Amino acid sequence: MKKVDAIYPPDRISLREVGLRDGLQMVKTHPSTEGKKHWIELEHEAGVRHFEVGSFLPAKHYPAFADVLSVIDIVKSLSGAHGAALALNKRGTIDALASGVPEVGCVVSASEEHNQANTKRSREETLSEVDNLCRLRDASDHKPLVSVGIAMSFGCSISGAVDPIEVLRIAERCYEAGADIVSLADTVGYAGPRQVAHLSKALASLNGGRTFGVHLHDTRGMGIANASAALDNGARILDGAMGGLGGCPFAPNATGNVVFEDLVFLCESSGFRTGIDLEKLTSVRSIIVREMPTEPLYGGLAKAGLPLSGIPETHI
Amino acid sequence: MKKVDAIYPPDRISLREVGLRDGLQMVKTHPSTEGKKHWIELEHEAGVRHFEVGSFLPAKHYPAFADVLSVIDIVKSLSGAHGAALALNKRGTIDALASGVPEVGCVVSASEEHNQANTKRSREETLSEVDNLCRLRDASDHKPLVSVGIAMSFGCSISGAVDPIEVLRIAERCYEAGADIVSLADTVGYAGPRQVAHLSKALASLNGGRTFGVHLHDTRGMGIANASAALDNGARILDGAMGGLGGCPFAPNATGNVVFEDLVFLCESSGFRTGIDLEKLTSVRSIIVREMPTEPLYGGLAKAGLPLSGIPETHI
Repeated sequence: MKKVDAIYPPDRISLREVGLRDGLQMVKTHPSTEGKKHWIELEHEAGVRHFEVGSFLPAKHYPAFADVLSVIDIVKSLSGAHGAALALNKRGTIDALASGVPEVGCVVSASEEHNQANTKRSREETLSEVDNLCRLRDASDHKPLVSVGIAMSFGCSISGAVDPIEVLRIAERCYEAGADIVSLADTVGYAGPRQVAHLSKALASLNGGRTFGVHLHDTRGMGIANASAALDNGARILDGAMGGLGGCPFAPNATGNVVFEDLVFLCESSGFRTGIDLEKLTSVRSIIVREMPTEPLYGGLAKAGLPLSGIPETHI
Repeated sequence: MKKVDAIYPPDRISLREVGLRDGLQMVKTHPSTEGKKHWIELEHEAGVRHFEVGSFLPAKHYPAFADVLSVIDIVKSLSGAHGAALALNKRGTIDALASGVPEVGCVVSASEEHNQANTKRSREETLSEVDNLCRLRDASDHKPLVSVGIAMSFGCSISGAVDPIEVLRIAERCYEAGADIVSLADTVGYAGPRQVAHLSKALASLNGGRTFGVHLHDTRGMGIANASAALDNGARILDGAMGGLGGCPFAPNATGNVVFEDLVFLCESSGFRTGIDLEKLTSVRSIIVREMPTEPLYGGLAKAGLPLSGIPETHI
């Protein structure tokens, strides 16, 4: 069995909670390491198995991720839990591989303009770094998974419309480099569900069954609808953040990631079993409120609770 | 051409803004008649054509709807605008028919328990009132449209799961009585998109092309995803409220109706033209803030604004 299939089983949907990475990109306060530990442990108890927990970035400029090594170890200590962290430059790549984190993520933008603005490099240079990451991964002992997020896959807040063919070309290029997972990222929440359905379907059919995911933001209220479209069109990994934490410097004032709790409800109500206990999961919000009292939390389920007879089954 | 087809054209989606009816069910403050006038006029200028503007209920207990006759007249004065109001009992039916409102709405619950709790009558008695309304409508001069909302179509917060066959039976019964429109209402926001897709598809195929709609609440964050599922499965009329106003006494603390602005974005991004200018539409929120300063407003689009190059087209 391929390693990626052991960690993200092909016969089910995997939900990756990215609150401790993407959720902390723009926050004014961030949780203590102890707070992160409670957060992850309680989620694990609720049934969450996939966590994105930080970025390898200079601690001076990104204090929220200064404890990334400790947080990776927290995830490692939990049975069946899988941790991922981002490496956004050469130094980060070396540190990430040295850390032993089971999954190293990186990002390339679908638009040249956003890639330049975000990384001060061309897309081609970033893709060379993906090559480099995969080569170093192959030479490493523990051979972590490599996942690539394609930012602005559904439109760019700097350059406007993005040609889906270009997104598919980048995805193909990443798989050829040796990436295990490619994710279509709606970084600024431009997509609608039809767009997500079409691009997911195209990626599913072009890549011959290779694993892909979606990373969606709820910026224009389409997050859950887009997730539903991705679910129905072959995406196997869906990212979300507790309480919809997160934002994007390229989408000021906007709401953040798709709400993880609501994403679980969506999957369950659509017949995709997640293994996650929603009541336990929503209690994680109290940790976030305690650790980051000024951050707004979004989401319907946490306010309303579960339906009287549980999540409705789909039948007719 | 059937009257309902002239008002809700079969070759397009009609969006009905219900903020002035369902949006005012549970509010502490309500807009003045002048405020309602600005609200409707600005929406009309933005391209909205279908409005649900109140209920025929005793003014003493429901002061938010005391001016329903004036508000119906406001809608009537605007070119191409269509107004609807609810009649929830015998007295309301008589008053609604006398008012000359172009559409009279009524509600029956999919569950016996909720029908009793909501109206102190059995479902059978409520269905008899639908018969009565249709008979009186046929005998009237202006013959308004009759629309019936089936509350709790996707699950009931009193009795739990609802059998979709029962919902279809009630829908059939209402069409036989002479209803022009039946709407599947997710009164307490229990549904997920797969459930909405299945029930919409079944209703579309069973009723031989008769007009139906969906009335969705965003209680558990599924509002837009459910609307997308309904759009893709034959619903022609979708309700929403500006800013997601509204709530339900049977779903305390919960968010309200599906957010109208986000619903417009969904439709446009899925290739369904609405004729609504989203920038003008979002400016209606300032009237709501002025008239009902304590009401929370929801929605992504109003916060984030339109994407750089407008609403993305679906193409691949």
